[in-house]
Amino acid sequence: MKFADYITKYKSKVNDAIETIYNEKLKSIENFFLKDYYSELKNYFLAGGKRIRPLLCIATYNAFNEVNDDRILFPSVGTEFLHNASLIHDDIIDKDDFRRGKPAFHFRFRNYYEKYNLNKMNATDFGNSIGIIGGDSAFFLGLKAYFNNDFEKELNLNAINYYEQAFTDIANGVLIEIDMVNQKEISIQDYINMISLKTGALLEKSILIGANYSKAEENYKGNLSTYGINLGIIFQIIDDILGTFGDEKITGKPTDGDIKEGKKTCLLIMALNTLEKKKKEHLIHLMEQKEISDEEVQEVRNLFLDADVIDSSKELANSFFNKAMLALEKLKPIVNKSEIELYDNLLNFVLNRSF
Amino acid sequence: MKFADYITKYKSKVNDAIETIYNEKLKSIENFFLKDYYSELKNYFLAGGKRIRPLLCIATYNAFNEVNDDRILFPSVGTEFLHNASLIHDDIIDKDDFRRGKPAFHFRFRNYYEKYNLNKMNATDFGNSIGIIGGDSAFFLGLKAYFNNDFEKELNLNAINYYEQAFTDIANGVLIEIDMVNQKEISIQDYINMISLKTGALLEKSILIGANYSKAEENYKGNLSTYGINLGIIFQIIDDILGTFGDEKITGKPTDGDIKEGKKTCLLIMALNTLEKKKKEHLIHLMEQKEISDEEVQEVRNLFLDADVIDSSKELANSFFNKAMLALEKLKPIVNKSEIELYDNLLNFVLNRSF
Repeated sequence: MKFADYITKYKSKVNDAIETIYNEKLKSIENFFLKDYYSELKNYFLAGGKRIRPLLCIATYNAFNEVNDDRILFPSVGTEFLHNASLIHDDIIDKDDFRRGKPAFHFRFRNYYEKYNLNKMNATDFGNSIGIIGGDSAFFLGLKAYFNNDFEKELNLNAINYYEQAFTDIANGVLIEIDMVNQKEISIQDYINMISLKTGALLEKSILIGANYSKAEENYKGNLSTYGINLGIIFQIIDDILGTFGDEKITGKPTDGDIKEGKKTCLLIMALNTLEKKKKEHLIHLMEQKEISDEEVQEVRNLFLDADVIDSSKELANSFFNKAMLALEKLKPIVNKSEIELYDNLLNFVLNRSF
Repeated sequence: MKFADYITKYKSKVNDAIETIYNEKLKSIENFFLKDYYSELKNYFLAGGKRIRPLLCIATYNAFNEVNDDRILFPSVGTEFLHNASLIHDDIIDKDDFRRGKPAFHFRFRNYYEKYNLNKMNATDFGNSIGIIGGDSAFFLGLKAYFNNDFEKELNLNAINYYEQAFTDIANGVLIEIDMVNQKEISIQDYINMISLKTGALLEKSILIGANYSKAEENYKGNLSTYGINLGIIFQIIDDILGTFGDEKITGKPTDGDIKEGKKTCLLIMALNTLEKKKKEHLIHLMEQKEISDEEVQEVRNLFLDADVIDSSKELANSFFNKAMLALEKLKPIVNKSEIELYDNLLNFVLNRSF
């Protein structure tokens, strides 16, 4: 089945499962402010997102089952909660007030605050405070996916174990990235290690959770992991390219953010590894400034183009595409044809996407 | 067994279990910054704390077992991780740089930052960012207590369910409290509801997790809950008294913090409910200011004394003490004598503490 057909078939069901978790929560709440809080969290979750993680979980469950069943829908949304929870906290850390063209969660409460007139807290602090707790709530709401479903308790406990591992990997990736802003020499290998934690691990764990519920044999998990992590690596490399050279109207993201934050993208690392001494030093100088002007952002972009980083980044992405395809080859004789098509399809989509 | 004897017997073992979870984590890490991060989190956890939550969990496990065994030690520390995780985030929200006279977690990284010279982030933002992720890590590390132990998977899954409920209760309590700062009329009942969530729930869940692992009968849980929640309510009322009228040298906490933050303590609520119109209005005026001087803090304190709030707060605490004692009476024929003594002892300690 094509990825687009999977979206058509399952995306609204996935959204229903997310909504169910929130409606259950809202049903038990009387306090006015808490009602607003959980409603806003629900709105934030339902405001967008491709739902790649739940879809991967569902697909992997289906890949090992002769007959599909919808029991997997509820547990499939766990990693989507985890994903959004970490976005909520990331947006506070990065001071990003918008996400996917819509207000970030903390920003919604900075605005909400205007309705009141708090004496003891300013609007920014209020937004950030509710944002911190909001991310925490989302982390814990994700656990609900592994309770009250129709699977054995042992499978649910395994899923929670993956959930915990996924969080740890993401957190370690984010921490390494924060620390990298401060490092001078970074190898492509360091970068790949960082993004496999930050982005690859959650795709991998979404897949492994699906495999867990379908009781797939242990020895298939290696190839499933390889596929998932490499899918994430490709996703992040392309994200880096689009983050500086994408079309803002299509991606919904400003193309100067990464440069302004001093992010160690693959573009920057490759440029530093390729440019001749003088240009390299100029690039370092530009990136090390506290503030960078629009003209200087354009200078950085030109130095990137000088170093031909788009092509070499795409080449890098291709090498991980091949690794993922190899793992897929090995899974071919084992899993259902329809899901092999989907895995293949998604891999191509992620490599060639422009948004 | 007396509470003090319980501390002697178990506190260092509880600390060992906490250390084990961190050492396991640190063993698998090579990245220099991550090593610092988890080491600092470990130091923060081991810097102090009475370990009341693990001790309550252990005691309740022992209360239903003829022969004690140390299997409960590892899962007992889960709620201590949850407790510290929420303290880490609370300290960012409340801008408290110290906790128990030692640096708060985010503050440790604000200082750590001085070692570097980050261009893109200031020290405060860096500390808060690592603090947000640090609290998240602690929430997830707590889950580890319910894996790799010697109990059945079903009991571990139940424990995680309590863990999730405990988080939700605490978060709801904290959110209601943030919102209360902004409310004019608050009844004592609103206040009691808020503190039973913010403080009572985690003591209750620590007890229920102990009962779960000892496979205590379902119908004992009502009285165990009642005991735990009321213990928390008493703890918080006394905390409010000590937070304004305690001895800083003994409590380690400044006695102007609650008033400066505009906290709706039981002292304030009772004063507003008791004082004659003119004094009440003056109290409201003092508390509603954006900033409050030291002289005005003393004025607030005097108005509290005028309203005789210490005595009426102690009376309030006493009424919950009686509720907890009643629950304890009902548990007496069922649970081991040694733990009844401990429950009784702890209740008296919490009511009469000066630190």
